[in-house]
Amino acid sequence: MLTLLSDFGDRDVYVGVMKGVIAQINPGLKVIDLTHQIPPQDIAAARFCLLNAYSYFPKGTVHVAVVDPGVGGERRGIAVELADGFLVGPDNGIFSGLLAQSQGTAAVELTNPQYWRTPQPSRTFHGRDIFSAVGAHLASGVALKNLGEEIAIASLVQLDIAAPTYIDNGIVGCIQYIDHFGNLVTNISGTQVEGKTWYVEAAGRTIPGCHTYSDVKVGEVLALVGSHGWIEIAVNSWNAQLQLQMEVGEVVQVNINRYANS
Amino acid sequence: MLTLLSDFGDRDVYVGVMKGVIAQINPGLKVIDLTHQIPPQDIAAARFCLLNAYSYFPKGTVHVAVVDPGVGGERRGIAVELADGFLVGPDNGIFSGLLAQSQGTAAVELTNPQYWRTPQPSRTFHGRDIFSAVGAHLASGVALKNLGEEIAIASLVQLDIAAPTYIDNGIVGCIQYIDHFGNLVTNISGTQVEGKTWYVEAAGRTIPGCHTYSDVKVGEVLALVGSHGWIEIAVNSWNAQLQLQMEVGEVVQVNINRYANS
Amino acid sequence: MLTLLSDFGDRDVYVGVMKGVIAQINPGLKVIDLTHQIPPQDIAAARFCLLNAYSYFPKGTVHVAVVDPGVGGERRGIAVELADGFLVGPDNGIFSGLLAQSQGTAAVELTNPQYWRTPQPSRTFHGRDIFSAVGAHLASGVALKNLGEEIAIASLVQLDIAAPTYIDNGIVGCIQYIDHFGNLVTNISGTQVEGKTWYVEAAGRTIPGCHTYSDVKVGEVLALVGSHGWIEIAVNSWNAQLQLQMEVGEVVQVNINRYANS
Repeated sequence: MLTLLSDFGDRDVYVGVMKGVIAQINPGLKVIDLTHQIPPQDIAAARFCLLNAYSYFPKGTVHVAVVDPGVGGERRGIAVELADGFLVGPDNGIFSGLLAQSQGTAAVELTNPQYWRTPQPSRTFHGRDIFSAVGAHLASGVALKNLGEEIAIASLVQLDIAAPTYIDNGIVGCIQYIDHFGNLVTNISGTQVEGKTWYVEAAGRTIPGCHTYSDVKVGEVLALVGSHGWIEIAVNSWNAQLQLQMEVGEVVQVNINRYANS
Repeated sequence: MLTLLSDFGDRDVYVGVMKGVIAQINPGLKVIDLTHQIPPQDIAAARFCLLNAYSYFPKGTVHVAVVDPGVGGERRGIAVELADGFLVGPDNGIFSGLLAQSQGTAAVELTNPQYWRTPQPSRTFHGRDIFSAVGAHLASGVALKNLGEEIAIASLVQLDIAAPTYIDNGIVGCIQYIDHFGNLVTNISGTQVEGKTWYVEAAGRTIPGCHTYSDVKVGEVLALVGSHGWIEIAVNSWNAQLQLQMEVGEVVQVNINRYANS
Repeated sequence: MLTLLSDFGDRDVYVGVMKGVIAQINPGLKVIDLTHQIPPQDIAAARFCLLNAYSYFPKGTVHVAVVDPGVGGERRGIAVELADGFLVGPDNGIFSGLLAQSQGTAAVELTNPQYWRTPQPSRTFHGRDIFSAVGAHLASGVALKNLGEEIAIASLVQLDIAAPTYIDNGIVGCIQYIDHFGNLVTNISGTQVEGKTWYVEAAGRTIPGCHTYSDVKVGEVLALVGSHGWIEIAVNSWNAQLQLQMEVGEVVQVNINRYANS
């Protein structure tokens, strides 16, 4: 099984063509789209999406991710083996979230053209000519080491992501992702507030820490631990991004074991 | 086989993750997307889409539908058996259109955590932790009665939808859905005008009842019986929503066996 | 295997329903979406997308394409056999790009209702009632000649597309397609500039002919041979459509073996 993630959108045939390439190599492979609506060239959003999706797939799944502003330039193409799956894509930090959480066991640079679609790949579409072909071969049983020269996992590009900072009775972080519903996902883990009384300060407001949307009235703002384990700001049956006018990167403070008026 | 319908959009990994959960349970299942672009929390639109799609799938298909503003609150999760398929999702009226047309034969509340992805489901994403997992088990042959406690079909939540009213030589209804092409789909069945002369009054206009788009010139407004059997207002090769500036809920009158000038 | 291409968008259940019809006929068929975001009724965009996707699919793939403003009127439904695949859809020029490049070997008009979903098809949705059903039968091994009466390939509708014109040391063409990234795809083949020094004049600018995006700085305009073999205008890590404010049809001149200041 393979998954595909990209910033290709759904208007063009780029994604369909990658699936055609995979089917030419092995028509029996199952392909699941993670999303193709990563904002163009937004490696950080792609990194976040991969991180949150990875653990829900069967052992051995190959994840092909193509958000690749450096295509055709100096950046390496890589494949990485983890304990329970594989990653294929550009070495630009897209996998660095996953690799921080799930130790890689081996990595190669994709230098063996035998597993590409063509030995003369396009300079602008390695998703078609290299990554989907390599992913299809890997998912069909080709060994990682055959795909190219081994490289050190420590040599893979890291993406610097703002980390939350700890203060007295609280954590200061930021919005790291905004989803389709307008939920504002912070970079603060929900484990920080487990079993505690807490509230959030953001956008000049005091926002109660809750368990689910319906803990507040329809249209009211709340904070909760979202389904991927991050503290999120949401509005019951409505859109927190629109209501609070917040964007990625804005500061959020979580206060623990304190009350809004303390 | 399963189908998936939701308001999750295509920007995030929510849909991909549901497919991963299904593949973890049974990688051999075929999954077809109905749509994930239901407007957020719009149970009526989801109800309409399910109603129109249901009959085109093979007998035994499991339809998992997740438009679920009450997730994590009091609403029940349910699975329903019909003569030729299964429904899985929240008990919020999403299935009430289908159940009005196709008698259910049994229903259960999803109280058996053995068939969930995890006995501690997220409070905000039952699509991942309960509905897709239950759907995968059901499509793999698990009996409905094993999924939880039997409940009466008459107890399921109904969604009140405006019904058309009958007048002399006509029917007064409303726009109940607007599709991607801007076709204005009414809540009036096409069987009402079968073999008859008819026209529509809407948006202050008199609109001829036709058989197909090209019965009028490009850019002209017409009414016809759409592909799902409802009377629709359309524009040949253009967009009726944009041209007439009509929205869901606006009144439409169908006149039968009368002429526009009579 | 089948592919689907349409202007149905992703908001409604139209595409899902076509997949249901295919699964009713043969649940074992693999279906790949090329795109469903062709602008409504834009046969030229559909023609371009098919042309660029076709060669990446396995031999024998059936391509079902439904951009069909004339549905229910006089236009024919057709199936065409090529050396390495099949085409199914309306006879409105949607396949004329492919047929100009890849000789068809036989064509039929879809007059045999035995292979439709129903002998009484909707007047507005032949994608569901005729094309997807015929495509499923064809992909399942039904012979082309059984689908209807043979017709001459020369009789199929051609779509007139502006051809580039050759001038001294150059070619004058136009933008024929704009992709999700805002790349401006011309109608000038990349073979014209292979191994040569070249530059482009467009939107009042002189744009260097390059090999890949990173040949210029981030935010700078370049021209290159895109992944489907056409000369494209792009911006490194940004959007050429937004930056140059160009639209489909606007003139582009490629100058060969000349320098911008010559």
